Amino acid sequence: MKHLDFIKNRRSIRKYQDRIVPDDLLKDLLEESFRASTMGNMQLYSVVITKDEEMKRKLAPSHFNQPMITNASAVLTFCADFNRFSKWCEIRDAKPGYDNFLSFINAASDALLVVQNFCTLAEANGLGICYIGTTIYNPDPIIELLQLPTLVMPIATITIGYPAEEPQQTDRLPVEHLIHHETYHDYSKDDLDACYAFKESLPENKYFVEENGKQTLAQVFTDVRYKKEDNEFMSEGLLKTLRKQGFLK
Amino acid sequence: MKHLDFIKNRRSIRKYQDRIVPDDLLKDLLEESFRASTMGNMQLYSVVITKDEEMKRKLAPSHFNQPMITNASAVLTFCADFNRFSKWCEIRDAKPGYDNFLSFINAASDALLVVQNFCTLAEANGLGICYIGTTIYNPDPIIELLQLPTLVMPIATITIGYPAEEPQQTDRLPVEHLIHHETYHDYSKDDLDACYAFKESLPENKYFVEENGKQTLAQVFTDVRYKKEDNEFMSEGLLKTLRKQGFLK
Repeated sequence: MKHLDFIKNRRSIRKYQDRIVPDDLLKDLLEESFRASTMGNMQLYSVVITKDEEMKRKLAPSHFNQPMITNASAVLTFCADFNRFSKWCEIRDAKPGYDNFLSFINAASDALLVVQNFCTLAEANGLGICYIGTTIYNPDPIIELLQLPTLVMPIATITIGYPAEEPQQTDRLPVEHLIHHETYHDYSKDDLDACYAFKESLPENKYFVEENGKQTLAQVFTDVRYKKEDNEFMSEGLLKTLRKQGFLK
Repeated sequence: MKHLDFIKNRRSIRKYQDRIVPDDLLKDLLEESFRASTMGNMQLYSVVITKDEEMKRKLAPSHFNQPMITNASAVLTFCADFNRFSKWCEIRDAKPGYDNFLSFINAASDALLVVQNFCTLAEANGLGICYIGTTIYNPDPIIELLQLPTLVMPIATITIGYPAEEPQQTDRLPVEHLIHHETYHDYSKDDLDACYAFKESLPENKYFVEENGKQTLAQVFTDVRYKKEDNEFMSEGLLKTLRKQGFLK
């Protein structure tokens, strides 16, 4: 196998040099990323680029004020977009029927394939990126700030810049535990012990458990980082926003 | 900018040589693809590999019998998976709270980033892939055939093999129409005319309009390919399946 070092050795970058990523480079990277597979070649996405300092400051609270938002050269909000396509249908005497959940998932899938393609291309060009997972946690102020119309929904945010750090690569689960042949083989306790042994053995994760006063690493996730009540609260909000954006008719 | 030819010049491959993609190569490609960004490093995905001929034949109807399914060396079904993580929580005295919509979107996002990374790596290694968009159209028989448990949802299917065709590259919309600076600039009729002019001018698309007895290309999409009533019917089914798989508690 031919390895791609910029994929194999990649790590998310959260600290950036005080150096602008040129608009032309961003445009070229995006253009090439748009070669990703897309549902019926409809290209159901749009990208909003935030470079203005004040706009970054206004965007930050929606992402829990993670410092990458204001420190990055640019913040890219990738959106599932059925607005452009539907408007084109309307001016061409065609009746669009894309104000529904399936169409949202189709558009979100299109957008996420482009996100990953963009990240690969950016990293191959010496840039650092961080995937900001908070976009769907609190989408309403993002929608308002970026002026996203009906049938446009923000789905992923990427910060980008020239790296000012060389962090350690994070661990991954052993690959064989994530692949299933022919049918899904559900996990026994032994499987799970084997799957998570390395992760649980890492000093940083042991420290994480201790620091949070927990007994197990899993408890750090369920009790501190990704809590049931938060997930349920944000799920309701997310469905409400999808309805407001016209994707749950 | 350093271009990546295997991205820039890529095209989906629907015809494959009668030649097996070795299991080890698939595993290596998947392992490297798992370097994609993942929510809290939880790796909320699983991949089911279908190589068995009978299993491919059984899978085909769920994908409208597209010939790629049975002709490909392997079919990969990428799933949003909160089952493994939740089961690990349970055996570690932690109470998982991931049976909700936000968690589904988080897991689906994780899975889709991996899908694109995998496709890039496969193509860089001379393989051809086709993204099969029908996975979420009719997920129930896929879930049954692949024996996917609660909190596992198929989200994308990729066929893979050694290419036996060299199709033309498909068109893309002009990049500047998909990028917005600072705020989303909604599309005027002039914008849309400019955005879709090249696509509408292509002989294959003109033929497509004529062949289907339509007046405009947009009508081919709304009246033939992606119809409102189909989308609404499948949206209902998809939400029902998400509930059945435990993601809409």
